[in-house]
Amino acid sequence: MDKIISLCKRRGFVFLSSEIYGGFGSCYDFGPLGAEMKRNIKQLWWDEMTKKQDNIVGIDASILMSPKVWQASGHLTAGFADELVECRKCHKRFKLDELQKNICPECGGGLTKPKKFNLMMKTFVGPVEDDSSIAYLRPETCQGIYVNFLNVMNSMRLKPPFGIAQIGKAFRNEITPGNFIFRVREFEQMEMQWFSPPATLRKRSVAMRAGNPKDAKTPDDWFEYWKEQRMNWYIDLGIKKENLRAIEIPRKDRAHYAKRQIDIEYKFPFGWKEIEGVHNRGDYDLSNHTKHSKEELKYFNPDTKEKYTPYVIETSVGVGRSALAFLCEAYSEIKGGRTETTKSVKEVEAVLNLDKRLSPVKIAVFPLVKNKPDLVKKAKEVYQLLKFKFVCQYDEVGSIGRRYRRQDEIGTPFCLTIDFETLENDDLTVRDRITMKQQRIKVKDLKDFFQNKFRNDRG
Amino acid sequence: MDKIISLCKRRGFVFLSSEIYGGFGSCYDFGPLGAEMKRNIKQLWWDEMTKKQDNIVGIDASILMSPKVWQASGHLTAGFADELVECRKCHKRFKLDELQKNICPECGGGLTKPKKFNLMMKTFVGPVEDDSSIAYLRPETCQGIYVNFLNVMNSMRLKPPFGIAQIGKAFRNEITPGNFIFRVREFEQMEMQWFSPPATLRKRSVAMRAGNPKDAKTPDDWFEYWKEQRMNWYIDLGIKKENLRAIEIPRKDRAHYAKRQIDIEYKFPFGWKEIEGVHNRGDYDLSNHTKHSKEELKYFNPDTKEKYTPYVIETSVGVGRSALAFLCEAYSEIKGGRTETTKSVKEVEAVLNLDKRLSPVKIAVFPLVKNKPDLVKKAKEVYQLLKFKFVCQYDEVGSIGRRYRRQDEIGTPFCLTIDFETLENDDLTVRDRITMKQQRIKVKDLKDFFQNKFRNDRG
Repeated sequence: MDKIISLCKRRGFVFLSSEIYGGFGSCYDFGPLGAEMKRNIKQLWWDEMTKKQDNIVGIDASILMSPKVWQASGHLTAGFADELVECRKCHKRFKLDELQKNICPECGGGLTKPKKFNLMMKTFVGPVEDDSSIAYLRPETCQGIYVNFLNVMNSMRLKPPFGIAQIGKAFRNEITPGNFIFRVREFEQMEMQWFSPPATLRKRSVAMRAGNPKDAKTPDDWFEYWKEQRMNWYIDLGIKKENLRAIEIPRKDRAHYAKRQIDIEYKFPFGWKEIEGVHNRGDYDLSNHTKHSKEELKYFNPDTKEKYTPYVIETSVGVGRSALAFLCEAYSEIKGGRTETTKSVKEVEAVLNLDKRLSPVKIAVFPLVKNKPDLVKKAKEVYQLLKFKFVCQYDEVGSIGRRYRRQDEIGTPFCLTIDFETLENDDLTVRDRITMKQQRIKVKDLKDFFQNKFRNDRG
Repeated sequence: MDKIISLCKRRGFVFLSSEIYGGFGSCYDFGPLGAEMKRNIKQLWWDEMTKKQDNIVGIDASILMSPKVWQASGHLTAGFADELVECRKCHKRFKLDELQKNICPECGGGLTKPKKFNLMMKTFVGPVEDDSSIAYLRPETCQGIYVNFLNVMNSMRLKPPFGIAQIGKAFRNEITPGNFIFRVREFEQMEMQWFSPPATLRKRSVAMRAGNPKDAKTPDDWFEYWKEQRMNWYIDLGIKKENLRAIEIPRKDRAHYAKRQIDIEYKFPFGWKEIEGVHNRGDYDLSNHTKHSKEELKYFNPDTKEKYTPYVIETSVGVGRSALAFLCEAYSEIKGGRTETTKSVKEVEAVLNLDKRLSPVKIAVFPLVKNKPDLVKKAKEVYQLLKFKFVCQYDEVGSIGRRYRRQDEIGTPFCLTIDFETLENDDLTVRDRITMKQQRIKVKDLKDFFQNKFRNDRG
C-alpha cells in the first residue's frame, strides 16, 4: 500500500489537500493523472447508466439543500450519527469502542457518557448566521434525486420502472477517516436510483401490460439485476473475480433506510472493504418526503388508474474508493524489470496494468533521441496529430527504456517511437504495454489505428 | 426571460433546489437535459484547455481546504467581503446602496453602521465544533491550483509557461442572489491558471531559448492571448459577436488580487453581465503562499540558473452563467410555427438553436405511427443501435409535427422517422433542425453518418 501511495504522489495521481500547509482534514486532491483517471471512471459509469442501460436519465443537483430534506430523510435524527464520548477537559470526541481506557487518550481528562453526534457538516446560508440559516452539506447525493422525482418524471415523461443517475460530492464528518483516499470527509458518489412498482401491484401490472417481461419484475428481482450488473461492471474493467465479493448485510448493521443491503467489497491490501452498496430502500424516502412536503411523490398509471409510491433500488459507488480499487488491482512489480535499461541495472519495475479505458494517458510519443532536430520535429508533429483526440504525453528525456518504464508505471497502453526509419518511410513503432509487442504503423494510418483501438470505449 | 425559465423547468433543464419544500437559498438543480448540456459545456472546455491548447494539465482539488489558504489568499480579510448594514431588531443584513431609507425594509428597525461581512461559507471539520475546527467552502477553485503548484509542476515535469485547469464547485454567501441561475450561492467554475515567467526575465529567457517564440511572451502578451482565445470559444459555440464584449475593469473595481482584469460579458435579456473573467493575478497568490507556508512556490530554471515566481493569468468561467448565455442565445420563437401541425393551429413554436455540440439530446427516433407494431419494433431497433454512442430519445406520442416541435424546443439537431418505406428499403428520414432538410439514409449507414456529423466535437 505504501508503494501505491508513493506512486500516486510522485506521478501526480493524488496529493494531500493543502499539503504546503501540512494537509487538512483527511482531504485529498487529484493531480493531473488522478483527475484524468477519475474522469474516465465517471464517464464510464455515466455511459453505463444513461446510455447502455435502458430508461435512465441523469441529473445534477446542488450540494446545499433545504434542511427539511434531512428532517424527512432521517439524517437529522439518530439514524445518521456516531455514538461518541467527549473529553470533559479538552472536548475532543472519540468512538467508545476504539478507546483502551476510560480517560481521554489526548489529555487524560474524564469522559462523558456516550452521545450521538451527527455526521452531517453544517454551514450558514444567507445574511444572518443563526439557527434559521443553518444548512447541511449533503451526506448522500440521492436525496437530490428523490426531491426531484416528480420534476424529472413529468418533464421527461417517464413511467416506472425508470432510473435517475447522478454524480456529485457528498460530505461526512467522519471521526476516524483513514486508509489514504478510502475513508475521507469529502468524497464523490455515483448513485443511481431505480424506481419500480411495488410487488403488490405486480399481478395487475403483468395482466395490463402483457408481453413486456420488464414490467413483471418486482423490486426484489430488480435488486438481483442491479447487483449483478454492478459486479460485472468492475470485472469488465479489470477487477479479478477473486478480489470482489457481495456481502449481504444483516438487519442490525444496515443503514436506517435499507430493507435489504449488499456491500460490494474489494480485497484491498488493508482488507476487504466496501466500494459500492446496493440497497433496497423500499418506499422509505419517497413516502417520507410525501409526508413532510405535502407533495405526493407517487406515480399515477393512467391505464390501470392505480396510484402508487415506487420502490427504490439504489446503487451507490464511491468514486475515490473505486479508483483506489482499480489502482490496487493494476499495481504490479517486475523484478529485474522488463525493459532493456532496467534489466541491465536489476531494478524493480512498477507496472500499472490498468484497463486502457481507465488509463489517464492513452498514448506516449518519443523521439528516439533528443539531439536530432529532425526526429524531435517529426515526433512533435505526431504528438500534435493525436493529442486533441487522445490524452497524449510527449517525452524526450532519458533512454527509450527509461521512457517506457515511466509510461508503464502510469499505465499508458501505447508508446510510439519515432526513429530514423520514420524519416524515410513515414512509419513508426507502436509498443503495446500488455503484449509488449512492437509493430510498425504508417503515420497517416495512426488516427484510424487508435480510433479503432479505443472504439469500444464509448460503444 | 420568463419564457426561458419556464422552458427550463418544463423540459427538464433546471429546477429550483428542494422545490417540494419551497426551494432553498437560491440554489438550483440541473434536470436531465440541463445535466447533459452542462456536461457538454464542461467537456468542451476541458478538451479546449487540456487537449487543444498546449502545456495544460488538469487537476481536481477538494472543496474543503486548510483555513490557512484563505489567510494567505486574502479571502479571510477585508479583501473578500461585502459592506453591509445589520438591522438591530431582526438582525437581517442588507447592502447599504440598495436601501431606500435608513430603516430596515423588513421590520422597520434601526440599522448599524456599515460593516464588512465575509462572503465565505464556513463549516466545522472533525469531532469538535469550535474555532480550531472551522473550515470554509472554497469561494474560488483556483486556490486549489496554487497550493498544488509545486506538486503538479514536479510530478508532471513542467516548465513555465504551462497551465493547470480545473472544474469544480465554489460557494459564496451572496447577499442578493438573483436572475435565475445567474447569481447563485453554489456554483461551478471552470478555471485555468497560466504560469509564465515575469517580464523582467524575458530578455534573458529569449536569449537562452532562441527560436521559440512562445518563451518570448510576457505575462501581458499572454493576457491578450487568453482574452482572444476565450472570446473565440464562445463565438465558435454559437454566441453572436454583437452579444459578446470584453470590458476592461478599472483599478478601483478590480478583485483584490488583480493587476489587470477584463470581464467577458454577454448581453442577457436582463442586461450585459459577466460570464467569464480574465485576470492578471501577477505573483500575488504564489508569493503569498510562499510567505505563509514557508514552501517556495517558485520555478528554478536549470539552464539559466534563475529562480523566479511565475506570473499568473487566470481565465475563470461560471458554468451555469455560460449555460444560461448559450440558452438565451439559442432561444427563438417562430410565429405560426414551422412544422405542419403548428402552422395549421397558428401557435408560436419555440426553437433552441443550440450548436449541436451543446445539445443535450443529439438524435430523436420516431416511428411514424405508434399503432403499427412493425414500425415501433423497427424504430426501437434503430434507437438501440444509436443510443450507446449518442444521447438519443425515443418518442412515439402525438403527430410527427408535434414530435418535431418537442425536439426543436430542446435543440435536438437530428430527428429520424421510421415509416413504411423503412420496412421495405431499410432506410429512414433524417431531418436536420437547422436546414429543415430531410434526407433518406440507409439504416446500416446511420452509425457512420452520425459519427461523421459529430466527428469534430472531440477533434
